[in-house]
Formats: sequence, structure tokens, C-alpha cells
Amino acid sequence: MENRWTFTVEWGDCDAAGIVFYPNYFRWFDAAFQKLLRLRGLSQRELGARYGIIGTGLIDCGARFKGPAAYGDEVELATRIEGFEPLSFTARHTVFKAGRVIVEGFEKRAFLAPGGSEGRLKALTVPEEFRCLFKSA
Amino acid sequence: MENRWTFTVEWGDCDAAGIVFYPNYFRWFDAAFQKLLRLRGLSQRELGARYGIIGTGLIDCGARFKGPAAYGDEVELATRIEGFEPLSFTARHTVFKAGRVIVEGFEKRAFLAPGGSEGRLKALTVPEEFRCLFKSA
Amino acid sequence: MENRWTFTVEWGDCDAAGIVFYPNYFRWFDAAFQKLLRLRGLSQRELGARYGIIGTGLIDCGARFKGPAAYGDEVELATRIEGFEPLSFTARHTVFKAGRVIVEGFEKRAFLAPGGSEGRLKALTVPEEFRCLFKSA
Amino acid sequence: MENRWTFTVEWGDCDAAGIVFYPNYFRWFDAAFQKLLRLRGLSQRELGARYGIIGTGLIDCGARFKGPAAYGDEVELATRIEGFEPLSFTARHTVFKAGRVIVEGFEKRAFLAPGGSEGRLKALTVPEEFRCLFKSA
Repeated sequence: MENRWTFTVEWGDCDAAGIVFYPNYFRWFDAAFQKLLRLRGLSQRELGARYGIIGTGLIDCGARFKGPAAYGDEVELATRIEGFEPLSFTARHTVFKAGRVIVEGFEKRAFLAPGGSEGRLKALTVPEEFRCLFKSA
Repeated sequence: MENRWTFTVEWGDCDAAGIVFYPNYFRWFDAAFQKLLRLRGLSQRELGARYGIIGTGLIDCGARFKGPAAYGDEVELATRIEGFEPLSFTARHTVFKAGRVIVEGFEKRAFLAPGGSEGRLKALTVPEEFRCLFKSA
Repeated sequence: MENRWTFTVEWGDCDAAGIVFYPNYFRWFDAAFQKLLRLRGLSQRELGARYGIIGTGLIDCGARFKGPAAYGDEVELATRIEGFEPLSFTARHTVFKAGRVIVEGFEKRAFLAPGGSEGRLKALTVPEEFRCLFKSA
Repeated sequence: MENRWTFTVEWGDCDAAGIVFYPNYFRWFDAAFQKLLRLRGLSQRELGARYGIIGTGLIDCGARFKGPAAYGDEVELATRIEGFEPLSFTARHTVFKAGRVIVEGFEKRAFLAPGGSEGRLKALTVPEEFRCLFKSA
């Protein structure tokens, strides 16, 4: 299962070099992940209520940049979940411009709940129900 | 050489779970890199003028999250440059809260100039002068 | 002429109170203004090239908040240009949630060029051509 | 009582015209308001706990732009609370660059609690205690 989201890079997304200020890609990755949740009738709020978590928080993330996007460019962001582990899962994000990959990123997320040691959050087992909803065919 | 920057996590930096919305860490990494440049009398603008680049753009980045920071927390961000390669260098960022590491991140950057194939940017050789300024003792 | 843009409020748009962190409305106002320009085949870049300006910069702006929007809400942003003056024009923005107005805002913009006194920018006369393109019928 | 906050405009705060993307001023206004609260030992969290509000939310805001700030500029943001009304108060923000006013803004805020009609928030009377803490001498 994959979410495809097409949008236009806006003026405020770009820095003084005229290209996307890179932290915005992570903002888009997070938004794309939320859109993917909605495709299955879920949300951070719903997951919080159902599993007692503060959300599916990040434990690791990254992005590789292969080409720039600038103000006015139409880009497409493809997102799918893969790499299920007992305590985490990974959202893979690929950004396309004119059919070419310009950014590849990932978000490794966990079902985070209060109660870790020293004020940290604690990763719960990824619920089987969640795994089934997003596991690729 | 290291830059240490202490700041307070503000209301607008946090999401509905009450903790830092993670793309903000990359915004802070970029700001910390700029502060490091200024320690050596440099800036993106100066580098652009001197070497004909659009800036020291990102080619790879990542972050691992070990603990949360919330509204009102004072955090410290330590930044140094290491991992010089012919066409890139890496800024290492460590975020501390109350003396404990909560985030470890990196930005692999290149001296990017127009003129790559298919509208991409081209990485120039990292200038020896730049390497000398930031190489750790 | 009016642009209508429908989008979903995402997790990262909201603060620790679970509602939109208000500066994001201005980010959306700016994006909506850009979308309006595109409806007429224009962009900040095109305006810069055509009139020698750095962009249509802000000289005044404001917003009144009548109701909150939260993560997952679908909102609609209606934007039109009105209030043409010799040296400025005003973009009016209205945000709707479920058919109700939740935010009313404006951006008073000018055709800003370098060359003002003391490093400031200088407002050029709003071009007649621009006025005609966006004047309401 | 006034808070004075000095900071450097960073790369990511600026747009493709090389000057501050204006919604960032509101992000800074909000941060400056939080810093002002802390000067009196308060925070949004503390106010929420004490008065049962979701925070001191915005009901109106605005900014007038008199001059630009660019990457690397050091700016100073002066913030004070004035204009107490029964159901709201106003934070006044003035941004200086090299001793000159470049932006004047305000945030009209209310003690917002759940329970308004039609899903809206309800403004509580501004507590006398709060008024006393921030009323100018």
C-alpha cells in the first residue's frame, strides 16, 4: 500500500538559494505518513486513544538528496510502510520531480508511550493489527 | 573546533504530543552549521561569493532520537565538522538535555554549484582553505 | 477572481494545545497568494524578472481568529486580491472549516525593489497590467 | 516590564528573495511571549494547569514591515504586554535591526478554554493575578 501525494513547492518552502530548505522535506514526510494513516481510517489521535501512546514517534530518520526542487515545482511524494520490526516500523518516502527521484528518505517510528527510564519514552510492541493494515501485499 | 549553542524549546517547536516536532531538529542543525561558519568569519553568502556555489547544500542527513524534549526545556546543541571527503564534508550534531544526549544527527554537505546534468547541481571539490579552517586539531 | 484551496491540517501544523500554531496561517496565506498568481500565469519569479522587484513583499498583515482548527481537520482557504492602491494591494484570506469562517486575514503587499533609503526596499507603483489581471469583475 | 531578545537571522528563516519569510516573525513573536512569561515564572503549561485553559490563544494579530532583515543579521525583539481588557490582553512586539525599527507587531491573546459554542473556544476573564504580574509600572 502506497500513498501518492502531489503538491507544489511554495515560496516559503525555499531558502535564499531558491531551493527547498531541506528540513521541509521531513515536514512533508510526516504529513505524508499522516495521510497514509488516514487511508486506513487511522490518525495519531486514534492510535493514541487505542494504544495509550503519545503517537508514533521517531527513533531514526534520514534523507538523501539527489536533485533540487525550487519554488513552483510540482513534486510527488510516494510513501509506504515497510521494515516491520517488533518495536518499530519504517516509512519509506520518495520524492519525484518530473518523474525523476530527487529525494529518498525514511522515518523509523515506534509506538511511544510514557514510562521509559529517566524521563524517556518507551517503545511498545507494534500492534499486530497495525502491521496487518499496512503490510505490503 | 566545536560550536555549542544553548536555547530553549519553545511552544511553536512542539507538536500535539507536547514534544519537539522532529523536522525542527534539522532546522536547528542548519542554524548551528551557520553559527559554526560564523566562528570562522564565514557564511553561506561569503562561500557563495568566494567559490561560485549556491551554498553548501545537503546530500545526505539523518538523526537518531534517544529522548524527547518539550516546551520550556533548555537544550544544548554541539556541532563540529568532520569526515572530510574530496566532494563532501559532514557536520555532526549532538543535542543534550540536562547533560544527556537526546538526539544525534549529521548533515553531509557539498559545495554545490549550478551546471550538473539534467538540471541537477554539481559538487565541487571541497576547498583546501575550508578544510583547514574546520579540521579538528 | 478568487482562489479556493482545500487542504488537511497536519500533525506538524499544530502546537501542544493540539490546534494550529498560528504563524502557519500566514505560511498558508503566502502559499495561497502564490497559487492565485499561478492562476494568471504569474509567479514571484516572473514578477521579479518582469519588473525588477525582489518580490511582492509584505508591508502590513493581520489575522483574526474566530475558531480553532486541529490535526486532521479539512479546511478551505479562499483568497482574492482587492484594495488596490498606487503603491500596494491587499490579498484577503478567509479560512473555512465545515463551512464556517474560522480565520480572516490579509496581506498588504507592494512591488518591492532594492534602492530605498538606509538599506530599505522601495515600493514601485503597482503595474496597471497586474491590477487588471486581478481586479474583481 | 519588557523582554529583550537578541538573535541572528538564519539561512532557513529567509526566502528566495534572501530576506526573512514573514510568517517567521510571528513564530518569533510567540517565542518572545513565552520568554516574557518565563521572566515571571510562568509558562503556557503552568497557565493551563492553574486556570484550566488550553493556553493563551490568539484572537487577533498583525505586523507592519518597515525594513527587511536578511541572513546573518542580528536583530533584537522587544516585547511587553499592554492593553489589558476584561477578556484579552495584547503583547506588543518591536523588531530592531542596527537600532532601527524594522517590524512592529502585536498579538491579542485570550485565556482560551474548551466549552464555547459550536466547537469554538471560550475566552475566560483575564485573571487579576496575571494582569498584576505584567502591568507596566
